[in-house]
Order: sequence, then structure tokens, then C-alpha cells
Amino acid sequence: MGIGKLANSFHDECMKIKGNVQRTIWLNDDGWSVGIIDQTRLPHRFEFVTLKSMAEAAQAIKDMLVRGAPLIGATAAYGMALAMREDPADLHLKCAYDVLHETRPTAINLRWALDEMTRHLTPLAPREREVAAYLRAAEIAEEDVGINQAIGGHGLALIEAILSKKRPGEQINVLTHCNAGWLATVDWGTATAPVYKAHDAGIPIHVWVDETRPRNQGASLTCWELAQHGVPYTLIPDNTGGHLMQHGMVDLCIVGTDRVTAEGDVCNKIGTYLKALAAHDNGVPFYVALPSPTIDFRVRNGIKEIPIEQRSGEEVSLMTGLTRDGRIETVEIAAQGTPVANYAFDVTPARLVTGLITERGVISANSHAIATAFPERAKIN
Amino acid sequence: MGIGKLANSFHDECMKIKGNVQRTIWLNDDGWSVGIIDQTRLPHRFEFVTLKSMAEAAQAIKDMLVRGAPLIGATAAYGMALAMREDPADLHLKCAYDVLHETRPTAINLRWALDEMTRHLTPLAPREREVAAYLRAAEIAEEDVGINQAIGGHGLALIEAILSKKRPGEQINVLTHCNAGWLATVDWGTATAPVYKAHDAGIPIHVWVDETRPRNQGASLTCWELAQHGVPYTLIPDNTGGHLMQHGMVDLCIVGTDRVTAEGDVCNKIGTYLKALAAHDNGVPFYVALPSPTIDFRVRNGIKEIPIEQRSGEEVSLMTGLTRDGRIETVEIAAQGTPVANYAFDVTPARLVTGLITERGVISANSHAIATAFPERAKIN
Repeated sequence: MGIGKLANSFHDECMKIKGNVQRTIWLNDDGWSVGIIDQTRLPHRFEFVTLKSMAEAAQAIKDMLVRGAPLIGATAAYGMALAMREDPADLHLKCAYDVLHETRPTAINLRWALDEMTRHLTPLAPREREVAAYLRAAEIAEEDVGINQAIGGHGLALIEAILSKKRPGEQINVLTHCNAGWLATVDWGTATAPVYKAHDAGIPIHVWVDETRPRNQGASLTCWELAQHGVPYTLIPDNTGGHLMQHGMVDLCIVGTDRVTAEGDVCNKIGTYLKALAAHDNGVPFYVALPSPTIDFRVRNGIKEIPIEQRSGEEVSLMTGLTRDGRIETVEIAAQGTPVANYAFDVTPARLVTGLITERGVISANSHAIATAFPERAKIN
Repeated sequence: MGIGKLANSFHDECMKIKGNVQRTIWLNDDGWSVGIIDQTRLPHRFEFVTLKSMAEAAQAIKDMLVRGAPLIGATAAYGMALAMREDPADLHLKCAYDVLHETRPTAINLRWALDEMTRHLTPLAPREREVAAYLRAAEIAEEDVGINQAIGGHGLALIEAILSKKRPGEQINVLTHCNAGWLATVDWGTATAPVYKAHDAGIPIHVWVDETRPRNQGASLTCWELAQHGVPYTLIPDNTGGHLMQHGMVDLCIVGTDRVTAEGDVCNKIGTYLKALAAHDNGVPFYVALPSPTIDFRVRNGIKEIPIEQRSGEEVSLMTGLTRDGRIETVEIAAQGTPVANYAFDVTPARLVTGLITERGVISANSHAIATAFPERAKIN
């Protein structure tokens, strides 16, 4: 099957790893199994995993081998394709939806991708579903690349506007939280797309990367991918951003999101809200980059309505890294038996968001602007 | 010499470790060497270290075997005593001041204790200085215990006032950052003194403990000492507090401080400012507990005037903990060669501080209230 190659031809590729074009999810040459990067092994190991069943796709999402709302969506879509290969009956379609849906409760793209696949496959005869599912999954992946390229273009314009107010040679400092990068999407990233575009355009850009406890996706993923692309960056503890903003060391914040409400509240990795408060307190623009599938028109008040995933306390109390002699080792950093709370996300109220960088341009974080930019989705919901 | 025992008799003792009264710094039975806890080994090991020279005292401060502004002050005072034992000449007094002073640039108590010792010792004949130095160091330690007990009493009244507005049986939730606990002082702690007093008074109190990256003093020290005292607590990543406050899960914040300006700006462990912003945004009272030596009347605007210590990037990129087989191991959590910025403190503007809990009561964070409460110190500076 040539679906993989077909999918790779629509848009410009962003990320190269050691000179080779690389996406975060792809169809293998066998035409049916799905390749991903095991992101839990980064930055110390760069390893691929092959998904050969719907159950493996669900496990990969649950165990966060893939993470980031858009990539979760693409993986779930391919998970549905794998499910249709196993058994295209209605009952299995429903079952696959449920199994994949319960892997991660917060990411709206997961449900969006599953709904999209279900809507597409349900009217078809079971024998037609496998091929149709692979084609639609490839399209969903491809659409994500296109969306992120567009986000990159609109974000680049914001960066150019800030640059125009600086003295010649001055650097643009972006602060980001977690990984809303290439690794969180199929290519380009959401929050990183403007950064990659600016860097590629020769703008001197530097990124403050929040470590992003407890899973350290900033330290292990964002730093790693910025380094691959050659973008200057500095790793900081999550506690640092406020101090930097007080001292004029941040020109703008760009973060990703797992879900945006119809009124513009932003659900993203825990701690995003604290950075938004600091940005607001210091007059630093705070932008959220998102593909429109991340907008959940069924939810208005993010703080009241979005359920926040609680994850294992071991994500906080255990830390994995590389020993001096090159082994990957896990150590306990709190005393044994320490009670831990681990909320994965928080909600930044729309009032703290300067703008939403979407594939259709930069819009205000309010219901009117969002509905105007995406009327076809606002109407349905 | 009986100075150690004498010093232990002035105030109620707070902390017991396995049933035994324990301070964080003490004169050994030999009458001259100084005992401390190696806090870098906690929570996995509880080990004592003996300081036998001024140089060892300086190294213990620099390497953070002892940390926390009041304990740094007491250790520096004993460091001066050790110096006078080595050589009581004027030149060595001056030299000891300089060596001890340059160990940590931010903690004002360090300079306060050194100034106090110098003022006390300089007029004396060299042969009188050793005994006088040990006595004054013991007094400084003892004064810290008395101050913290008083802070605890004033903080307890705040907690009781909040409790009175709750339904019977409801728990008080305190959020704290870093370790301004028993381990940061000689006994009781500053931010923890009200908590220990409330717990001892039978108030159902629970503490959200910020992990406090990069050195994890919340996870490794505050959790450990609260557990020793039997106070219920939950460890959280630093990113979590905003979410908890949005959902009414924090009744008040109490933090310590390394330096408060004459106008009430609060310099404390990096990330404190972010929690103060969240408290302000959610109407949660944000208190700072401090002994008055922490007030620096020579500084007014904390953000502009207080130099912020930058520490090694390895504090961020390396993490030490216990392996499954009980070894203490250090692992690298970012890719090798990752550039890191590690600012140790930030400044919370006075406008975000609900009140300062001092040994003379709870006062507003402004120059008038501070000068009124401490007229003798405000006048000198």
C-alpha cells in the first residue's frame, strides 16, 4: 500500500533527525502496521515501536509512548484502522471507540478523531471499512501537518511584529511549557511551529523551556527537538518563568493546549495557568497555539466543566534518567510512602490569554471570535 | 562547657525525631565542636556532621548541608565562634566574616548574624573572644527558637480565625513552598511553626507541599519533617498550586523568606511569586512567616535591588534519589549538554502579600507597618 508515501507528499516537512525527514507517526512499508517513536525513552534513547493491533495503539496512548493532543488523535485514528483490520463489524467499531477513548480523559482531539473515524466508517459496509479507515487516518495525520504549518505562518507574523520593535540584532525570547512541539503532533508542532518558522527565516530566536514536572516533557522532549532543529534554548525549572518575566527576559509565551472551550478557556499541562498569571502581571503576551479540533464547543467554562486527569503519584516521586555509566535508572526522590497528588492539567481562564494562534489566524480568546473563525464547528455543537 | 545544655533550656522544644528532642544545630559535649544534620542526605538518610573549623562551617553553608535563612545565620554565628577558637586576632575576625559571608549571597540573616557577632566581639580583647563568641552564638540560636515560637502563636491565631468560618470537622488546607520548616531554623520553623502549633492544638490541618524544584526541598525536607511530627501532608509538583486554588482546595498559603525589604517585597525560593499570583487571583490569603532579622531595611524595591543567586545547572539536570535496591544514585534527567538556567530565588511584590507573620504579630507588607513594628531596626538603617 502506498498510503504512507502518499500522506508524506502533501506538505513541507519540518523535522529532520540526523538529516532524515522524520514524522512522529507513519504507516510502515508492510502497508498496515504503524510506526511511532517511544517518547518515554527520550532524550536518552531514540527508538521506534511498531503498533500491530488496536490494543497496542491504546496501550501506547495510555502509557504515553505517544502524547500531545494532535498526535494522540492521529494515533487513535490509526488505532481504529488497526481495529477495522482485526474485525470490521459494527460491534468491534464501537468497542474500539470505547477502548481508545478511555486511554486519556482530557485530550479533546482523541474524541474528535474517534468521532470522525466513526462518522466516516459507520455508513460503510464492513468489508469496505479497513481501506477506508487507513485512508482517513492518513488524511487526519496529513491535515494535522497542514494545520501546524498554517499555525507556524500566523505565529511567525506575531514574532516578526515583536522583532520590529527591537533594536537590530536583539534576540526574541519565547517561553514555552511542556511539549507542544513536533513530538506532540505529526510534524512541526503547534507552539513550536512559529519558532521553527522564525528560526528558518533567520530570526535570532531563543526558547526558555519549562522543565514541566512531573513528567519533564519540556526537559526531555522540547529541549531535545529544539536541539535537533538547531534552535537555541535554555532549560529552566517550572518555578523560573515569573522571575524572567519580571526582568524583561521573555518577549512572549507560546504554549499548546489539550482543550479550548467555546469561550476561550485553555486547558493545558498543569502549571500553564501560573505562567499565564505571570505574563499578565508583567505585560508579556501569552499566546496559545492550537489546531481547531482542539476546540470543544460543548464546553464553556473550563474551570467548572473540564475533568482534570489525576495520574499516578509515582510520576512525581520517581525520576528516571541516565547514570554516569550510561544505564537508564529510576530513583525515588521523596521518602518512601510519601502521599502525592498528581493533577495532569489546569485551566487558564480566557481573560489571561492574549490570543489563540489557529490555522485560520490569530483570534481573541472569546466565544464570538472563536465562533466567527470556525462557524461550521460552532454551529454543529 | 555547659553552653549547649543551657541553650536548650529556654524554650519549649518542638521537634522530636523518634521520640527524642532534636534541634538542627547544637554544641557537642566536647564544648566546642558543632553538630548539624546533613540535609543533603534527607529524606533517605538521617546523618549528623561535626563542624570543627570555621572553614568547615563555611563549606557546610555553601554546600547546603545546612540551608534556610535562620539556620544559615546560626551556623555562621557558630562559624565565627570556631574562628575565634582558631585565632581570636582582629585580622582573623575580619577574614572569618568575609569567608562566611561569601558562602550564600541572598540570605540576609547570614549578614545579620555576622554583623551581630562582629559588633559583639570587636570591642573585646582577643583572649575574651572565644568564650564570648560561643555564648553569643548560643544566644542567636536560642533567639531563633523564641522568635519561631512567637511566629507560631501569631500564625495559629490566623488559622483559628479561618477555622471558625468552616463547618465543624472541616480541614484546614495550607500550601507551602520550599522548606521554611524546622530544618530551616534551629527549631519550630517559620512557615511551619503555625502548622505545628495548630496540629498540636488538635486542629485538623493538612499541608500541600510544593516539591520545589530544582533542589526539591519541599519533597525531601518539608514532607520529611511534617511526617516526623505526624502532620498530614501531600506532595505536589510546583505546577499544581494554581489548580488547587482555583478549586477551593487551599485555605491559605504560608511561605518563608530569605529577605524582606523595608517596603515588604519578599525574596524567597524561586516560584514563590507564581504561587502569590495564584493566591491573589483566587482570593486565597498569602502569608509570609519571618523572623525580623530577615528584614533588610537597606533595600526597598526587591525586584530592582536584590541580587538573585544563580546556581549550577546540574541542580536542574541531575537528580539524586534512592534506587530500588537501596543505593543513593544520581541520574541525568536532561540530555547531556543541555543549557540550563538556575535562578535560586524570586521576588514577590508586597502588593501580593496578605500579611507578614513576625515574632511581634501579623503586620501588613508595607514600609509603615514594618517600621512601626520594628522601630529600633528601622531607625538604625
